[in-house]
Amino acid sequence: MTFVAIIPAGGAGTRLWPLSRKSHPKFLLDMTGAGRTLIQATADRLADLVDDLIIVTGTAHAHEVARQLDLDDKSIVIEPSPRGTMPAIGLVAAIVEQRYGGDAVVGSFAADHLITDTPAFQDAVRTAIASAETGKVVTIGITPTHPETGFGYIDVGHETDVAGSFVVDRFLEKPDLESATAYVESGTFLWNAGMFVARAGVLLDALARFKPELADGLRSIAAEWDGPGRDEALGGWNELEDSVIDRAIAEPLAEEGGVSTVPVSMGWSDIGGYTSLAEHLDDPAHQVAEGGSSQPVYLSGSDSSVVYSYDRPIVIHGIPDAVVIDTGDVLLVTTKDAAGGLGGVVSSLPEGISDLR
Amino acid sequence: MTFVAIIPAGGAGTRLWPLSRKSHPKFLLDMTGAGRTLIQATADRLADLVDDLIIVTGTAHAHEVARQLDLDDKSIVIEPSPRGTMPAIGLVAAIVEQRYGGDAVVGSFAADHLITDTPAFQDAVRTAIASAETGKVVTIGITPTHPETGFGYIDVGHETDVAGSFVVDRFLEKPDLESATAYVESGTFLWNAGMFVARAGVLLDALARFKPELADGLRSIAAEWDGPGRDEALGGWNELEDSVIDRAIAEPLAEEGGVSTVPVSMGWSDIGGYTSLAEHLDDPAHQVAEGGSSQPVYLSGSDSSVVYSYDRPIVIHGIPDAVVIDTGDVLLVTTKDAAGGLGGVVSSLPEGISDLR
Repeated sequence: MTFVAIIPAGGAGTRLWPLSRKSHPKFLLDMTGAGRTLIQATADRLADLVDDLIIVTGTAHAHEVARQLDLDDKSIVIEPSPRGTMPAIGLVAAIVEQRYGGDAVVGSFAADHLITDTPAFQDAVRTAIASAETGKVVTIGITPTHPETGFGYIDVGHETDVAGSFVVDRFLEKPDLESATAYVESGTFLWNAGMFVARAGVLLDALARFKPELADGLRSIAAEWDGPGRDEALGGWNELEDSVIDRAIAEPLAEEGGVSTVPVSMGWSDIGGYTSLAEHLDDPAHQVAEGGSSQPVYLSGSDSSVVYSYDRPIVIHGIPDAVVIDTGDVLLVTTKDAAGGLGGVVSSLPEGISDLR
Repeated sequence: MTFVAIIPAGGAGTRLWPLSRKSHPKFLLDMTGAGRTLIQATADRLADLVDDLIIVTGTAHAHEVARQLDLDDKSIVIEPSPRGTMPAIGLVAAIVEQRYGGDAVVGSFAADHLITDTPAFQDAVRTAIASAETGKVVTIGITPTHPETGFGYIDVGHETDVAGSFVVDRFLEKPDLESATAYVESGTFLWNAGMFVARAGVLLDALARFKPELADGLRSIAAEWDGPGRDEALGGWNELEDSVIDRAIAEPLAEEGGVSTVPVSMGWSDIGGYTSLAEHLDDPAHQVAEGGSSQPVYLSGSDSSVVYSYDRPIVIHGIPDAVVIDTGDVLLVTTKDAAGGLGGVVSSLPEGISDLR
């Protein structure tokens, strides 16, 4: 069996601005002081399991990704433009199909998630591979720890022939708090963390049924990828349909019983904002922004603050849950509660700051 | 008549830290962007009225005071150590008594107050001088604009023979809010801004009655001040009693009917903190700390904030009434409400920040 990990390394988001920004999205950063960037940690976790590893990213970050992971051109797939997770993952799956055959198993793992229990992750991936070899598209589902409204959920059915793998009855959109609470209390729902494992051929054949033009387009590009026709074939990229893998394959296939899930508790986080980030820092109040130096920080009536210093000491007084991020070129002052609305702030930054997005 | 203004230029306080600090207290700073430092503005307001001007300050700031006001040594009285307002003002009054005689009128005006209506101030000083020439110790009283609990109050009695000058029935300590509200509503109470006007001889003779040793000590030093014996005479400074002029003279003399007050509305402020400072800034959200350069500031859900930038843009989100002060060597993040407690914060700053007090 051949197993190839796909790591989509896409946009920066805004909820960790200004630490994470277009020019250095969080997957390129050591967000938790672990000594490895998020994409490095993602690759590290997979190293023992994979026969090959392919990153799919944009032109802006391809060089830095290759540098951080010490990869050659064959392991970096550069999207001409972002068109959603389905074309990105689908193209790599089609390239794997060309290189290793359709029975090769691919697994897609986000570049910017955090997982603290690596053995649990690896066990889950092994189970997912076993389930994928029975012809399923497999999603790794996270046992929920709280009624989070920011994630989609997986409604789990009966166990499959592969122990630890369960049929997915359906995928559920991000719920309201009442529904989320009910899901978590039921004990039969998982968080959908967007990690998919499947045979390359199974994935592309499913896509060929649900979105035949997209599957054709991706397979056509992949056929030329390792030859002289790549650039010409990529000319068709911009005509591909924008889509995400959940909508394009997982949801319709789940209705047919074709999707399974492997539940796991592994200290997973998508580090979706400063509150989430703070939970993974040894000392949220004394972080150093990239390029800066450790500075004294004094908190008075400002417990539970998240502070990144750069080149000057910081004193915070009387703001519980303050978020103070000094990156040297810009200073953000907000609170954990308010930071959920950073997207609107970042999109409306005025001239003189907007180029720091 | 000879009128000599005394400007005590003492400590930094803590309520405007880190803008105002020991090394550059607020009187040496242009706090409002007026183009003049507070001590310069104080001297400017008095220029038309005075025959002479004497600053009393510590060794740390004597040079900078002389530079800012273009004064020679004769106009700077350096205290060997701070011992409260009574020894400071009393020493200068005694020097004036030596130089100009006891009938010369002295007036003491803080170096770090803000007054927006200079003509009203000057009229009040002229009235105070006239009242002082009748033998009174005169205090300039501020017509209250709100029930402030941070100031002492003056209980005003009947008008004296000098129009616009009223007998002080008594001085009242800083009140609670209920008392302050009652004072303001009564219409017969003024804020005590600590500005005193009196004949030098009257002031010192009063002191000689209430604190004879202190008066003797000050007059002994003053007798040698302009001769070769100054340094030797100053040896007695450290044995003088620490005291403030309100307790030492104003309160006991008021009980005898010896104090008058001139009520005035003149846009007075002691700039006692960031809330007070903000009221005197054209644009509190876009100030520049000394030595810094103007930077973009973006406020989102953070109206009424006070922001001093230094060398990087600042984004504040979701903190109404934020106070964000970047002085380049330290960053303070607080709120207008919390800033009232800055004293405790500054006194407990840890190593690495404490030297920035």
